[in-house]
Amino acid sequence: MSPVPAVAALDWGTTRLRAWLLDGSGKVLAERRGDDGLITAREKGFAKVLEGHLDAMGAPDTLPVIICGMAGSRQGWIEAPYVTVPAPIGAILRGAARIEGLSRDIRIVPGLAQRLTEAPDVMRGEETQLAGAGLPAKGRHLVCMPGTHSKWVAVADDAVEGFGTWPTGELFSVLATHSILKHSLGEHPAPVAAGSPFFRQWCERALGEGGDVTSKLFAIRAAGLLQDLQSADAAACLSGLLIGGEIASAKRRYGASEAPVVLVASGALATLYGAALGLAGLAFRTVDADEAVRAGLAEAARENGMIGGAS
Amino acid sequence: MSPVPAVAALDWGTTRLRAWLLDGSGKVLAERRGDDGLITAREKGFAKVLEGHLDAMGAPDTLPVIICGMAGSRQGWIEAPYVTVPAPIGAILRGAARIEGLSRDIRIVPGLAQRLTEAPDVMRGEETQLAGAGLPAKGRHLVCMPGTHSKWVAVADDAVEGFGTWPTGELFSVLATHSILKHSLGEHPAPVAAGSPFFRQWCERALGEGGDVTSKLFAIRAAGLLQDLQSADAAACLSGLLIGGEIASAKRRYGASEAPVVLVASGALATLYGAALGLAGLAFRTVDADEAVRAGLAEAARENGMIGGAS
Repeated sequence: MSPVPAVAALDWGTTRLRAWLLDGSGKVLAERRGDDGLITAREKGFAKVLEGHLDAMGAPDTLPVIICGMAGSRQGWIEAPYVTVPAPIGAILRGAARIEGLSRDIRIVPGLAQRLTEAPDVMRGEETQLAGAGLPAKGRHLVCMPGTHSKWVAVADDAVEGFGTWPTGELFSVLATHSILKHSLGEHPAPVAAGSPFFRQWCERALGEGGDVTSKLFAIRAAGLLQDLQSADAAACLSGLLIGGEIASAKRRYGASEAPVVLVASGALATLYGAALGLAGLAFRTVDADEAVRAGLAEAARENGMIGGAS
Repeated sequence: MSPVPAVAALDWGTTRLRAWLLDGSGKVLAERRGDDGLITAREKGFAKVLEGHLDAMGAPDTLPVIICGMAGSRQGWIEAPYVTVPAPIGAILRGAARIEGLSRDIRIVPGLAQRLTEAPDVMRGEETQLAGAGLPAKGRHLVCMPGTHSKWVAVADDAVEGFGTWPTGELFSVLATHSILKHSLGEHPAPVAAGSPFFRQWCERALGEGGDVTSKLFAIRAAGLLQDLQSADAAACLSGLLIGGEIASAKRRYGASEAPVVLVASGALATLYGAALGLAGLAFRTVDADEAVRAGLAEAARENGMIGGAS
């Protein structure tokens, strides 16, 4: 007999959705993945999309639902207003906004806003990964969450002090597709291996320049003309340059913490960032990004009284 | 009676072409502009496009022609091989490659290659602007040539020591059109005024970060969400950030020279870069980019013996 789910948890982004049924301890009982992110859900209706996935997993009508991600943005289902940092992680989770007018208890975790005149920034979704990253309750920790828009978060004594965004994944994609570098990388850039000497070299160059990457972008093109750089290696150059630049820049902004950097990532990205953090001389430990978001959603359900106390 | 032309001079780029008839002193007798850059000319035939423009200006069949720009690249009419720097400017101009098999004397000024392992770079066209920028024959000079791919050139005693490329114009265009910033800048970004406080603020931020601009790109988006930044001002932010970053980065690479920076630019770009150089604390003098390329082409014609000695 399968155990009874305590809550449904969703990471609902712009283009994708992941849903799980969790028991009271946060253990996964069922999983669904879909392309019906908020862009699709705005057309079909958020409630309909959600119920479809819950039905498919056999969730009871009374099961509460906790959601994080862009579904809580102004363009989403309802806006779960940003919590302004600095803020304790527990207080952020407890700020989940309830969807009114439905019998089912559905809540969306708020995003974070950094309201600094010189460094305004926002996140939505990563705050939940952060809550599930298993950070020690005490001490200062620097968390790196790589992706399309990489986030670096400074956490002290279980509270978010501040954070920053480096659009590294988006820059790679936009430059590879729409800039002169498309001639260097070719139509379908090869996956980048962390062991590539080109990745390492260009990462070290960016680290040496303190995050100034724009001065080196055209050099990738020139290396093709003058040094016979091949297209698969050009992708490794661009990846190394952008990731190295991100790390150099974040290191300068946040300083080195005593504790190892907490790298919240999965798969190839975890390997590339691990290699680059090593080149930057930063100790790190990796937390799986998928596990972190599930753990964070379970924690949010607990903080909002949707399931029983801590497991 | 109109004076007799001594040479036809062309700046023949990827998408555009400008042609002049010059007298023996470099004075302009006629001018043509066309959209038949090398992309179009590869289809129509370079000789045919050239003769069409020469005919329209009433050039005699025997008039020699000097050309600079991408027409001399591997994808151009013929490849005028790169001259490797360091190199004296006179020697660069004298390396013009002749088109064989035509009765008319047609030569293309070579581009420059910087064959450094860590900083490979190329230029084609800007070397001619540089030759025509009226630099003093003695001393060290730093030249800034802004554009799609901005070039900074270190010149000492009339020789190019080295140079670098910052793809500032391309980054603005690619990010405005294809990145998340398109939501911030709107469909048709407003022209940026050098007097805009947003241009100034974001330029100063980039200068303060030593050329690290990627850490601040997403902040333009966040400023729209949190600080009600309007789209016309967002374009000024992006422009200020990228130009400030270019200047900070070039300043770090080449150091400050005793002589003022020579800014080779025209129109709005000259004004924006002038404002940004001022914010960076760099003295500068402006040379009109159109005049510089014509003067450089006339000088190239003289150095190759196509017209008489210096005027």
